[in-house]
This record gives sequence, structure tokens and C-alpha cells, in this order.
Amino acid sequence: MDADLRTLRQRLAEISDIYRSMGVLGWDQRVTMPPLGTPARAEALATLGRIAHEKFADDEVGALLERLRPHEESLAYDSDDASLIRVARHDWDKNKRVPAELRAEMLRAGAQGHHTWAEARKNDDFASFLPVLERNLELKKRYVECFEWDDSPYTPLLDDFEPFMTTTEVAKVFETVRPVLAELVREAPGIDASFLDVPYAPELQREFAKRVLATVGFENGSWRLDPTVHPFCTSFATRDVRLTTRYHPTGLDSFWSTMHEAGHGLYAHGIASSLERTPLANSPSFGLNESQSRTWENLVARSRPFWSHWYEPLQETFPEQLGSVDFDDFMAAINRAEPGLLRVEADETTYSLHIILRFNIERRLIEETLAPKDLPEAWSEGMRELLGVDVPDDARGVLQDVHWSSGGIGYFPTYALGNVISLQIWSVVREAIPDLDAQMEAGELEELSSWLAENLYSLGRKFTPKETIERLTGSATIDPQPYLAYLREKLSALAA
Amino acid sequence: MDADLRTLRQRLAEISDIYRSMGVLGWDQRVTMPPLGTPARAEALATLGRIAHEKFADDEVGALLERLRPHEESLAYDSDDASLIRVARHDWDKNKRVPAELRAEMLRAGAQGHHTWAEARKNDDFASFLPVLERNLELKKRYVECFEWDDSPYTPLLDDFEPFMTTTEVAKVFETVRPVLAELVREAPGIDASFLDVPYAPELQREFAKRVLATVGFENGSWRLDPTVHPFCTSFATRDVRLTTRYHPTGLDSFWSTMHEAGHGLYAHGIASSLERTPLANSPSFGLNESQSRTWENLVARSRPFWSHWYEPLQETFPEQLGSVDFDDFMAAINRAEPGLLRVEADETTYSLHIILRFNIERRLIEETLAPKDLPEAWSEGMRELLGVDVPDDARGVLQDVHWSSGGIGYFPTYALGNVISLQIWSVVREAIPDLDAQMEAGELEELSSWLAENLYSLGRKFTPKETIERLTGSATIDPQPYLAYLREKLSALAA
Repeated sequence: MDADLRTLRQRLAEISDIYRSMGVLGWDQRVTMPPLGTPARAEALATLGRIAHEKFADDEVGALLERLRPHEESLAYDSDDASLIRVARHDWDKNKRVPAELRAEMLRAGAQGHHTWAEARKNDDFASFLPVLERNLELKKRYVECFEWDDSPYTPLLDDFEPFMTTTEVAKVFETVRPVLAELVREAPGIDASFLDVPYAPELQREFAKRVLATVGFENGSWRLDPTVHPFCTSFATRDVRLTTRYHPTGLDSFWSTMHEAGHGLYAHGIASSLERTPLANSPSFGLNESQSRTWENLVARSRPFWSHWYEPLQETFPEQLGSVDFDDFMAAINRAEPGLLRVEADETTYSLHIILRFNIERRLIEETLAPKDLPEAWSEGMRELLGVDVPDDARGVLQDVHWSSGGIGYFPTYALGNVISLQIWSVVREAIPDLDAQMEAGELEELSSWLAENLYSLGRKFTPKETIERLTGSATIDPQPYLAYLREKLSALAA
Repeated sequence: MDADLRTLRQRLAEISDIYRSMGVLGWDQRVTMPPLGTPARAEALATLGRIAHEKFADDEVGALLERLRPHEESLAYDSDDASLIRVARHDWDKNKRVPAELRAEMLRAGAQGHHTWAEARKNDDFASFLPVLERNLELKKRYVECFEWDDSPYTPLLDDFEPFMTTTEVAKVFETVRPVLAELVREAPGIDASFLDVPYAPELQREFAKRVLATVGFENGSWRLDPTVHPFCTSFATRDVRLTTRYHPTGLDSFWSTMHEAGHGLYAHGIASSLERTPLANSPSFGLNESQSRTWENLVARSRPFWSHWYEPLQETFPEQLGSVDFDDFMAAINRAEPGLLRVEADETTYSLHIILRFNIERRLIEETLAPKDLPEAWSEGMRELLGVDVPDDARGVLQDVHWSSGGIGYFPTYALGNVISLQIWSVVREAIPDLDAQMEAGELEELSSWLAENLYSLGRKFTPKETIERLTGSATIDPQPYLAYLREKLSALAA
């Protein structure tokens, strides 16, 4: 038994090393690689990806997992070893169902689609993107056929990002959220935010962000922040965390984007070191991971207590832009709700409505109640209905997001689920740290960060998303009420 | 036959992808990685290294190579395919001889030794480094036993860096070079270079270096230059070349160090694209590779024609430091010979003497005519004899270089061989491009760069070092006379 477990751990560590190496290659590609390095990099990534897949999905691993079943059952459910065997078995079962050829074809189509999409968006030319979308959908349908489902063929796709969640469950959450958000947006007060629409020197934006990042709970020497075209976070170990951000010459958006990625980074940083080099060194789902980026971006970095401490330093950094802007006006501007065309520029309140639109469309595409060619029309209708906005062109409509070009179908809902879950967890945090506001007013984020690390991040992927939420909140239900209450309160404070 | 060749190519491409990926991990580690990422990075590198070794050294590859022998013999010797099979067989034969366990142990000891060495040098404490050295030597001796040799057990070690070269051949070259250099150094005129011993803003150093690099023949979008502690060059594809350099606050050394790495970079950049993802996408030997870094560092970037063009821009970049320094004084300062303690700070003339000292010592250690504990004494004696310098401590003596700590024995001679070979090739270049001086005076380096790429770099590792030199120069002999003539002429011009 011991020998089998050692063998399994060794094999999984090796696979983890390969995936982490691919992470380094991907980070380098997006942050530093000279552009002409692309074809060679694609080959290197494909090779490492194939090796990792072969090493995992082979029958030896299956036999090992089978032999380890009695051992697993003899252990406490929440022990590291039982969790490792359980999660590895789940991953192995999923991997085995997918032919290597289909996997490779999906990767290839995804990689090829990106360029076509970028051109199509630039030229506002949906027709040129349509074949890519149709190809990705066709492959997704073949992929879905590898699995069983009860409610919708969309469920197996969702499962890649939000394991053990069904389409029906997501739809139910969204149906609760949708009308409330739509009403909040309709009734939101108009706020003057013109002082955020002026130049802010990127150098100073970075300097300010780094000052704040130094307080959020990262160990020195374990992270870095780099500029890139699309902000993202990746990590190659709990103590090698890479944040990236994008500095616009105008406005301060990069600050919240940086705090967003810092939330992902703190999650990766807080995973228990006993889980390193295993498939457990991750978060249980994209939604749970996103709940923490949202926590640091919004619940912390748009809150009054946070800015009670940081607004003065920010004013000192940007005296011309903010020196004469009242604290309350700043708070109103960064918390306002204002319908717009673009998801990535959406405020906290309208954001989930953009997601609900995408979820409904994805689901209909997969369930074949919407033809890909009819997407632009469905998009315009949805935007009008959900956000009351008219879509002037496909570039700012159905072509705005990268996800579908690389076959990322089933991913979008996790963004809104993250918003919802972030408030469920936040309620518990506030109970556990009663003087959190006072701490934030004093510029103290360490206790918050430690609490989250200890009670959430350190668990890694030992438990399912719902088990993880239940451990924290006492209930496994994804409950949108705290999220809606939070937005209601925020917007009514603005109106006052 | 076709199927076998395809299989071989595919296997070698996969292995090449893994090694290139390890290159990315290593570059990231030295240039950008947060320091606490070290242990995880070591694991990732070890895993990829083991996978690559296993994929190459297995019997299947040997059987493939055997079956391909008739095909190889049916092809022209210099065809890509014949070269690929020939070189892969050579590599495979070498790899097969070394037990995986010994290879792993050497890598491990090498990685561990680095830290001990760094501490020992910091504390000027040779005794604490001695066990590391003894361990590395013991492993090297076991390694040597895997091979056959005629003249010296040092030859198999040399072969890892300078394939097909014997210790006797190197000794013969060095015995020709040594007395001439020693005499040149003794008789070199004293030159005032105090204007190089003042602050030069690193930002401006970088800016100037980048201006020059833009003219040396790299395709836009295929390379980058980053600051690091120890300058180096690596590449992950012909069009993904990474140069690094180190900016001292004082002096302009970084410029020649950058040009040195650019020489390595141009070699990597010039390899024929048909050789990518094969073991031929490399230089034939460390000496040949070094000959090109020396070419760009010294033969180009210390020459009068080069500076006829670039001295004015340099003066404009550093008006305070160089505005009133005469061109001839600048040329004399950057070409002066002046014995010193440190190899990395040595001038062009004294440099090879530092190498000869190290070669003699390494050889005696491996031949067991010198005990490791007696190293400091042998070092001091050698420095006095070769350079006329007294060694004040081990930190600036036997502990100054990193190589022995990581088991890099047999590497040093390639530095001096590179110097020698650079002049052999340069003679041919000057014949092929009669107006080279005029071109350099006009700031034109493109024809030089293209000629070298076409006639040398593009060949990659298709031929042995000597075959490569013979193709270029008409003779396979490593002949130090052009090198000695060049230095004689340079120093007599200074004395005038």
C-alpha cells in the first residue's frame, strides 16, 4: 500500500512539474517572449502537454488508483492522502473518457481560432469568425458525447470549470439574480466620475499598486507584478506567484485589476505546502477562485474602510487629478452602476448581467436551440433586455470576448458565480473578524489575509466546491441573497 | 526507412522541446523568478531533465539509429538527414555509457555545490569549499571511467564541451600561446584609463547598447536584452534569443559584455531553420560558439573602424565622462593590456593566460598529480608565473569562478580556444569582405553578420568542430598564429 501510494505521489508530482513548467512557458509567452518565438513555443507547449496527458491517463495510474481504494476508505475523508486518491481518481476517470486525438484537436483548433477572432474583432467581421465558432462547437459536441448528463449537454462543459455543478443549478441562481440586478441598474443614480477620465501616469499607478500589494499578505520574495496586454495571474509554486496587469494612460482601472489578480495570487500563495506537486495544489473550481479575486477587488478595494486609509496616499500620488476631489465623490465614482457595452469595463453591479447573457447564449448553442449564424441578433436582443443598451456593432457585441475563439465554452458562468460566492464567504469573514472595518481603516489586511488562507486557500482542491463552501459557511447551497443585499445596500448608499 | 526517419525526427523534436523548455525555466530563474521559487524550480528542472534523458537514452532510439545506418550511408555526408543520424548516434553512444544514477548524482552535487561555493567565496574560506570540490572530482572520475581515452583522463571531460578534441592538442596550442602572451603582457605600455573608472548611468548604458544591437543583424521581434547578475545568452528557438547583461554603475564594461552575449545570440539566431527541433540546432562546440562571442566583443567592438562610427554617439550619450576624451586615448584604454587577479575583468591579452592556468590545474587534478587541498598554493604559483601577480586571498584566487562548484570541469579551455579560433575565422572574413573596415566605419554590420550566418551559424551542429573550421578556413588545424599576430599588432600600435 505504502509503495503504491509512493508511486502514485511520484507520478502525480512529475505531472504537476510538467504542468507548472507549461505555466512558466505560458507566462513567459504572454509577458516577455519576443513575438517571433510563437511557433516554437506552441510546439514546446504541445509536447509537454502531450507528455503530461500520456503520463496521467495511462492504465498503470488506473490500476494504482484501484489498488489504493481500500487504503483510501480506511483514511479520514479530509486527510491529505484520502483527498489525493479521491481527486486523482475523479480526474483520471474524466481524462480516460476523452480520446487523445480529440483532446489534441481541441487544443489545435483553440490555438488556431485566436488569430481569426482577433482579426474578426478588429474588422468588425462576424462572418469571418463564424467558421471558427462552428468548428469549436462541433468539437465541443463530440467532447460532450464522451460524458453522461441528466439535464443539459451544457453540463459536461460547465464541469471542466465548475466541477459537480449542473446547468439547472446555475440557471436557478441566475434567474434569482437577473431581475434584481436589472432593477438596480435601472434605478441607479447618475454619478459624476469625470475625474477618473483623465491621464494618470502609469509609473505612479504601478508604484501605488505595489505599496498596497505589500500589505495584502504575500511573503516577500514569493511574487512579482509585471505589465501585460491582458491581466492574469499564474503561479508555479505557492511561493512563485506571478501577477500581471495593464496600465491605461487614463483612469485608475489598473488598480482594481491588480487587486483582482492579487486575490487569485493570494489563493495560490495560501495553498498548504503539503499539497505542493499534487493535483490538490489548486482551487476547487473557477467560481471559488474567482470569489477571492472579487473579494480583494471589490469587497476590500472598493470599500469605505479600505479607502479611509488609502485615499490620502492616493491623493498624494495624484495631487492634480484627485487633490480637490472629495472622499465621498471618489467613493461614489468607484462604486457607481452604469450600463455599458463591454464586459471587461463593466462595474460591479452590471457585471453579472453581462455573464448571464453569455450563459444563456452558450447554453442555447450547445442545446442547439440557437444557430451560430444567429448569434449577433441574439446578442443585441439580450443586451437590450438585460442592460437596456443598443449594440452598435459586433466588435463591441458578440466578438468582444476571447473565450469562444479558444473553445472556452462553459467558463463564463464562473465569473458571476464568483461574485455570488464571494458575498457568502464574506458574511462568515465579517463574523469571524468583527473589527475588520477598523483594521482596514488602519491599513491592516494581514488578519483578513491569514484568515482566508487558513480557512479556505490552504485547503486547495481537497474538497469539491460545495464541500468547501459548506465547511466555511455551514451550507452547501449557492445562495445569491447576500450578494444581492450587498449591491442593494451599496447603491442605496450612493443614492442618499 | 522513411518511417524510421520520421520516428527518429519526432523523438528528437520532442526531446529538443523539453530541453528548450528547461532553457525557459532556467532563464526565468536567473532573470525574473522571485527567490523563494527556487526549490519548486529545481524539482521542475529535475523532472524535465530526467524525462528528456529517458526519452533519448533508451534502446528504441538505439535500434532506430542502427536500422538507419544504411540510409545514412546512402546520403551525402553533408545532407541534413545524414548529419542528423550521425550526430544523434554520437550523442546516443555517449549517453548510453553513463548510468542514469551517476548523471542524476552529478546534477544534484552540482546544484548543491553552488551555494557552498558562493558562501566560501564571500567568506574567503577555501576549507569549506574543499569537500564540494572533492565530491565533484570523485564523480568526475567515475564519469571518466565510462569512457575510453588515449592521452589523459581529462579528455573525456573536455569532450563534453569541445567534442573530438584531446588534452594533448589543447596543451600544444596553449604551449604556443603562453610564452608569447606572457611577453606581450610584460612589455605592454602603461595606459591611462581613469576616465573609464567613473560613474556611467546604467539607463544610458542600456540605451546605447540597444542602439548598437539594433544594427548587428537580429531580426526585429526575435530577441530581447535583460539585466541579470551574471551575463549570459540562451535561446529557445532561432527566433527567440535572450541576451542578458550586467550594468555596473562605474565604467562601460557592460557594453562589451553585451556585445559578447550578442555574438552567442547571433550564432543561435543564424542556425538554419531546417535544423530546428533537432540536436543539430546548436553550435559544434563551446570553443566555436565562444569564437563568435569574441568576434563581436573584440574583433568588432574594440576595433578602430567600429568606433570611428560609434564614438561620437557614445560621447553624446556620456558628454561629461567622454566629451573631452580624445578618440585615440579611448581606443588605447579599451585595448590596453594590464595583468589583474580576476578572469572576468581581464583584458583581451591577459584573458587567455587566466585560462591556461585553470587548464593546467584541472588537468593535474584529474590526472591526480595535484591534490585538491593544495589548490591555493598551485594557484598562487601559477598566477605569479603566468601573469606576474601576487594573489592576496582565495576569494580573488582559486574561489573566484563558479565552474568547479557545479562540476563544470573541462569547460575552461574552450574560452581560450574561442579566442584562437576567432582569429582564424576572422582572416577568412576579411578576405571575403575586403571593404569590411569601410563598412564598419559607416556603421554597417549587416554584411558581416549575414556572411557569418550563411557560412558558419547556419550549419549548426551538422559537422564536428574541426570539419566546421576546415569548411571555413581550408584547414582543420587549430592554429594560434593569427591570434598572436593580432595581439602583437594591437599592442605595438598602442605603444606607438
